[in-house]
This record gives sequence, C-alpha cells and structure tokens, in this order.
Amino acid sequence: METLINEIALLLRTRRVALGWTTAELAETLGVSRPRVQKALDDMRELGYGLSATGAGAIRITRAPDRMIDTEILAGLKTRIFAKNLHCYNRLGSTNTRAIELAESGAAEGTIVVAEEQTGGRGRLGRNWHSPPRLGIWSSVILRPQVPLQRASGLSLLAALAFAHSAESELGLKVDLKWPNDGLIDGRKVLGVLTEVSAETDQVYFAVCGTGINVSHLPTDFPQSLRQTAGSLAMACGYSVDRLAFYRAFLSQFETLYRGFRRDGIAPFLDDYRKRSLLLGHEVIVTQGHLTIQGRAITIDENGALIVRDGRKNTVIFAGEATLREQ
Amino acid sequence: METLINEIALLLRTRRVALGWTTAELAETLGVSRPRVQKALDDMRELGYGLSATGAGAIRITRAPDRMIDTEILAGLKTRIFAKNLHCYNRLGSTNTRAIELAESGAAEGTIVVAEEQTGGRGRLGRNWHSPPRLGIWSSVILRPQVPLQRASGLSLLAALAFAHSAESELGLKVDLKWPNDGLIDGRKVLGVLTEVSAETDQVYFAVCGTGINVSHLPTDFPQSLRQTAGSLAMACGYSVDRLAFYRAFLSQFETLYRGFRRDGIAPFLDDYRKRSLLLGHEVIVTQGHLTIQGRAITIDENGALIVRDGRKNTVIFAGEATLREQ
Repeated sequence: METLINEIALLLRTRRVALGWTTAELAETLGVSRPRVQKALDDMRELGYGLSATGAGAIRITRAPDRMIDTEILAGLKTRIFAKNLHCYNRLGSTNTRAIELAESGAAEGTIVVAEEQTGGRGRLGRNWHSPPRLGIWSSVILRPQVPLQRASGLSLLAALAFAHSAESELGLKVDLKWPNDGLIDGRKVLGVLTEVSAETDQVYFAVCGTGINVSHLPTDFPQSLRQTAGSLAMACGYSVDRLAFYRAFLSQFETLYRGFRRDGIAPFLDDYRKRSLLLGHEVIVTQGHLTIQGRAITIDENGALIVRDGRKNTVIFAGEATLREQ
Repeated sequence: METLINEIALLLRTRRVALGWTTAELAETLGVSRPRVQKALDDMRELGYGLSATGAGAIRITRAPDRMIDTEILAGLKTRIFAKNLHCYNRLGSTNTRAIELAESGAAEGTIVVAEEQTGGRGRLGRNWHSPPRLGIWSSVILRPQVPLQRASGLSLLAALAFAHSAESELGLKVDLKWPNDGLIDGRKVLGVLTEVSAETDQVYFAVCGTGINVSHLPTDFPQSLRQTAGSLAMACGYSVDRLAFYRAFLSQFETLYRGFRRDGIAPFLDDYRKRSLLLGHEVIVTQGHLTIQGRAITIDENGALIVRDGRKNTVIFAGEATLREQ
C-alpha cells in the first residue's frame, strides 16, 4: 500500500480523532499537495475505509477496512518484537518462501510477511494450503531463537497454542490441537502451521513459522475436497469475525509464548498443549512415510515428540500423520 | 581441472596400464591434436603426476599427485551415492557454503564439494576452521535423508564415526570422539564436523555435512593459537599419510554408515559411538551460551543428546562445548 495512505490513516486514527482533519490540514502536515491528499482519500474509500466529513469539511475514519495492510494491522497492536518489520502483500506465492528470502538477507527477528492471497500456499510435507483472497490469515514470522536444532520444532507447537489461546479469549471457541500442529474446532481444521528452519546442529540460524488460519470462509468457499474436513472461525462462531482484530490477538499471544520459549524452552507450555490435545489418551494410527504405528497416544514429550504405547513398547514419534483409531 | 587431463589420466590408469600409450594413440583415441595432448601431459607433470616413457615412447603413470582432483579421488573409489557428482576446487571460501548453494539448486544426494584450500573455512558456532592448501581434507557432502528435523544431528555423529573407522582401518590409529562431533588423536583435535540443515519440522530438505580433517600438518603448520590443541594424521602416525587414499576410505566408510542410517536411524551406531566417546563416564563441564552444566556424562541418547547427571538430576544436552573436569 502507498505510504501516503498509511500516513493519512495514521493521522486520522491517532491524532485529533474526534475533531477530524481537513484536506488542507492533511496536505500541510504531510507536506504534499491537496490534490494528492484528495486522491489518497479516494483510494482509501476504494480500500474499504469509511470516511465521513463534518460540516466544516473535517474528515474522520468511521470504519476500518478488512484488509491486511500495515496501518490496520499495527493499529492497537501491542507486540514488541513481532511486526516491528511488516511486509504486506496483496498476492504472493507463499508467505513462508518470501519470509525465508528475507531471513536469508538478514531480516530481523519478528519480521512478518502477510498476504491477502497465496497463489502457492504451502502446507506440511509439500502439500498445498488453500489460501483464497481475504478469507484467512496467511502469515509468516521470522524467528531467531538461540536454541539447538532439536528444539526448533517446539515453535510449531507454540504457534498452535497461540491460536488456541486467541480463539478462546477473543471468540470463546474451544480449539483441539492435533499433534503436531493442526488446530481443529468442532472437528474441522481451521489452523495449519508450517515451520521451516535453516540451522547447524548446534544452533538455529533462523526459523520461519507460517500459519494459515481460516477466518471468514463459508463451507462453499472451500474446494470440494476440503469441504468435509475444513472449517473457519466464522463457521465455528456462526457470525462474521473481525479478521484484523483476531490477527492482532494471535500475534500478541504468539509473541508472549515465544518470549517464554526463548527464556525457558518448551517445557512450561507442554501441560497446556497436552490438555488441548485431540490425541492423548486415545488409540491412534500414525503414518510416517510407509511406516505405520498403532497404539495409545500417551504423552507429548519435552522434545515435542508424540509417545505412542503399544503393549509394553513405547515409540517416540517426531513427525507423521496421526488419526484417531475409533473414527 | 581440465577435462582433457582427466580423460588422459583415466586412460593411462584404467586401460592398457602396463603397455602405456603413445602421444599419437592418445590423440587419436580422444579426438584431439597431438600438440594438445603434449601440452596436457606437460600440465600433468606440473600437477605432480609422475609419467615415464617406454623405449617406444609409450607413456605410463608412475606416481599419482597428492591433489584433490576428480580422477585421483575417483580412482578406486567404491561408493555408490557419494561422489557421483564431484566438485573439486583449488581454492574456495567454504566447501559447506558452496554445497548449500548446490543443494538449493537441486544437486543430488551424495554430491561432494572438496577444495585444496578454504579461505573462509567454517566450524561450529560461527568459528573459523584453519584450512591451509594441500594439508588436509576440506570436504562437504549433500545428504537428503528422509527423516524429521530432530534426526538430522545424527549425521554429525555418523561423520565422526566414519572418521574413527577410517583412521583405525587405514592407519591403525585410535580416535577419541568428543561429543558432539570432534575427533581427537592423542588428545589433539584432528577432525571437525559442521552439519548444516534446511528443513521443515517434519522432514529434512537437505543437510550439508562438512568435515575438516587435518592430514599432513606438522606442528609448525598450525597458527600459534592452535599449536597446543590441534594435530594431524601425519603427526599421529609419525610418517606422511596418503591423503587421497585416506579420503577415499573415509568416503566409503561414511557412505556405508549413512546407508544404514537411512534404513534404521542412528540407534544401531550409538554403542559404537559411545565406546569411542572421550566424555562418557567422566565428570564434565558443558557450556551452552551463558549456561554451564556440570556433572557426570552418563550416556548419549538416541537423539544424539549428551546426558549429564548431577546428583539425582539428569540434564539432556543437545548442543554445547564439553570439557573434562579433571583436566
């Protein structure tokens, strides 16, 4: 989005909110011509901003647009690391791919890439992630935790947990976490996480944690193949959800958990994760390539691995596709 | 190295070895002019090849050069995956960096990068690795094991173990492995391993396993700062070591272990590794950033982590700098 729109939106939002600003005042404060301000205001209406003028011609924001743009994401966001650098795109192949490029060029921890639409959204194990325009939150954050390689997969658990917390606190929804990193509501998948890592064995250089959150989809917004299994926050609530507000809540939760992780690792969060786990205590089938493990999911250990017991034998599973056996 | 030299060396080595080849025969077989063959033979002498001519003017190889060049590395190498693609450099910044570039452009598993000299050789945790011309084996291999992220650090253990096996079988030397991935002989560090990984949490995209092996150094070949702690195979043997033969043995050992790892993971190799470990059974101090852990090193677990016991408390350590406490 244009810088001028950002600057105008910021002025209208944060200074003299009640009074409003005339076109002339905006032009003078921002040091640009009145026609340029006028053009920017027209563009803002196009984007979905509600702008009202008082009798004296002073302009105020009456409605924020449901758009993944800097000003709106940052409005009221209370994070310290996350979104300090924010890259917003209308359309992108994959937010993870772009974030990895940025990380490789040295982008700081907390840098975020977000897109209204992903044309090549990626999920785990090379799968694609359906990411239609404006219906979800397709977002990636660059993290640089000072941990050895083995600890990195904890980040996926953290992201899933942050989603569960935000859905609960913002919308009163109960999220079931399906190890390793899916979030389900009423049995439908609403969240997917893809964490990608560049590392030496002793230390992570960077991790990119990508989260796909289905927000405003109706059942018919999903392709046929996903219609039985996928859901959205709106479907779970039964009413439309403020996508930007939810995103801000999620970023804030995720940052809080991540700051704890940097200090104390994953251990303090495991009980919370286990409590929300769909699998623990149930008979499960886990496939891992051509391997299949059956048994009772008894815990998730401090490495984020699922422990499955079959008779007296415990199997430690680091990755795989798990399903409940009774279903 | 020039292709023509490669081709000539290959002919001289593998066909009609006893009889030798005249310049005219070489020119005709390779389809190039006699002056070009003559020039290539001169270049080969420059490189260190010993070439003798029979009375009839037929040329034979009497001595192979101590050079990291395709023909010499491949001569008698019995690997199936490793070195199928081989990139040899006279001088390179870092073999790992080059291998990562190749891996990112899709280079196959087993692709190897080797250099006579590294001008920016890298060790663990951002340290540098002294890599002077022709004295060592500075080499990296691209691996694409189908394992989750957490299993990747096993590769460093494998490389260290492959070194220990080759030093024992080729030179009769006993190697002590210092967790996680140093190789010491008579208390002097001869091997360092740096494994770098690109992955999602569920699967490794690729790993580049770099090994620095000090072969022909005399004490004065090391900078002052390393002179008390670093050693070489030649120093340990007391005589000069055939660098190429050792490299071939190492590649062969490493591939054998790696093929086992792809099938069964690290577990089958752990007992062997533990047996050679410098730390196990001793009081150790492990530093990890600003953290220090003291205790008795009791085992290395199936994730490659060092387990240190202090009183009744076991600490699982994935990365760090370990030293023996009594020293």
